[in-house]
Amino acid sequence: MKQLPIGIFDSGIGGLNVAHAIKKELPYENIIYFGDTKHLPYGEKSAELINKFSRIIAEFLINKKCKAIIIACNSASSVALETIKIVAGKIPVFNVIDPVINYISKSYKNININIGVIGTKATIQSGIYEKKIKNLNKKIIVSSLQTPLLAPMIEEGFFNESISKTITDKYLSHERLKNIKCLILACTHYPLIQEEINNYYRFRNPYRREVNVIDSAKIIAKHVSENIHHKNNINIPEYKFYVSNYTKSFEESAKLFFKEDIKLQEVNI
Amino acid sequence: MKQLPIGIFDSGIGGLNVAHAIKKELPYENIIYFGDTKHLPYGEKSAELINKFSRIIAEFLINKKCKAIIIACNSASSVALETIKIVAGKIPVFNVIDPVINYISKSYKNININIGVIGTKATIQSGIYEKKIKNLNKKIIVSSLQTPLLAPMIEEGFFNESISKTITDKYLSHERLKNIKCLILACTHYPLIQEEINNYYRFRNPYRREVNVIDSAKIIAKHVSENIHHKNNINIPEYKFYVSNYTKSFEESAKLFFKEDIKLQEVNI
Repeated sequence: MKQLPIGIFDSGIGGLNVAHAIKKELPYENIIYFGDTKHLPYGEKSAELINKFSRIIAEFLINKKCKAIIIACNSASSVALETIKIVAGKIPVFNVIDPVINYISKSYKNININIGVIGTKATIQSGIYEKKIKNLNKKIIVSSLQTPLLAPMIEEGFFNESISKTITDKYLSHERLKNIKCLILACTHYPLIQEEINNYYRFRNPYRREVNVIDSAKIIAKHVSENIHHKNNINIPEYKFYVSNYTKSFEESAKLFFKEDIKLQEVNI
Repeated sequence: MKQLPIGIFDSGIGGLNVAHAIKKELPYENIIYFGDTKHLPYGEKSAELINKFSRIIAEFLINKKCKAIIIACNSASSVALETIKIVAGKIPVFNVIDPVINYISKSYKNININIGVIGTKATIQSGIYEKKIKNLNKKIIVSSLQTPLLAPMIEEGFFNESISKTITDKYLSHERLKNIKCLILACTHYPLIQEEINNYYRFRNPYRREVNVIDSAKIIAKHVSENIHHKNNINIPEYKFYVSNYTKSFEESAKLFFKEDIKLQEVNI
């Protein structure tokens, strides 16, 4: 059981960022990653379709004998968690939202605070962060903003330069995020522009407020590490990366997220 | 036969720009549009997959009794034209590339000229514009550049503002486009930023060259109008718009491209 891999999936390669954090936190675990590059981006698709794709991928990971499944995609976590839990049965399913919500609720207990959430259309329209935060603490005000251009921007390798600065500034300076004291990056791509976001709040924020920008990947990895059964403690780990559509360009971008050279393998789903 | 609709398809809603040009050029024709929003964007996908999707859509349009098929998508035109022609049999198939190539060859006969092409990864990597132009006129130098962020940028409604100006400038000021005298917009989305592109060449181009920016949609519509059989001359036209995945947001963006309010209908492919 200990030797069985942890399964991680995303609509594309952004979830490799979560896989990277898992690898750091759980260095002896075997990992199987699945990126649904044939159907990406999920952020623009309907909830029905995201459910359908997520179910097929969960079945693929279960066939590969994964001992746990991590949904490393906010869009799928927002709309398909229950579907995946049904498919997974006794296998534990982690998502990228609940660990962050728990962190928020611990950090800001009984505090009146305005928290910003940025993410894809699917994630923001689902309203899931707002609902879950309100359930835990009614005093928190949640200000959500769709930032759909950030994911393609990051996938194209635009960060730490003029384009990413312009786009990031444009979104962050939105009226709706004016009073936030904490910002949740509700998309697995966004940690790659954490530097730009921090710099915006440090140097260019006209509202001159300190904002706590939350690195979800780290929080998720820590949560998984604390809650996984049958943990591997000594092992030379094996990492396998599958995609539903292989292109050279996905493989190139994959490096950015996993922070090392990897080979992608195509499987038809 | 005259009453039968013209079928137009694209990976998404960008091809509505071509549909709009067709409507202007052929105001009495019935039109059926299909946007493969379930699988968009094609620009990042492999040639095999684009072929598969294109074949299914062509079959859908043939079942709808279309008298002609227009591939209003550069990625599909680049890699799936032959597949669609086989499926279509005697039904004429038009694409968005050949009419532009013919226009170029007529406009720059026996002239040494450097022509730029900007488009998605799939289109540029296929090298189709370069091959076709070289076949017609060996003297023409073709400088192609992948500009993958432009399509999502336009779909999100960013044009004529700071983000689109920054991104457009960044791409157009690329070294590779330094010596061009003509620019082909090899993506059906790009005519929506024609103003930005013209302004770049008018006011901000450091190389200070006049550049002829080609509006493909108009050229394509004219070509179809000149070459279609069984033309409709008197008719109150009917327009139908299908997508493989319906979202409110696609319907919103659709307006930008077709330049009027339209209803999208979901069909499962």
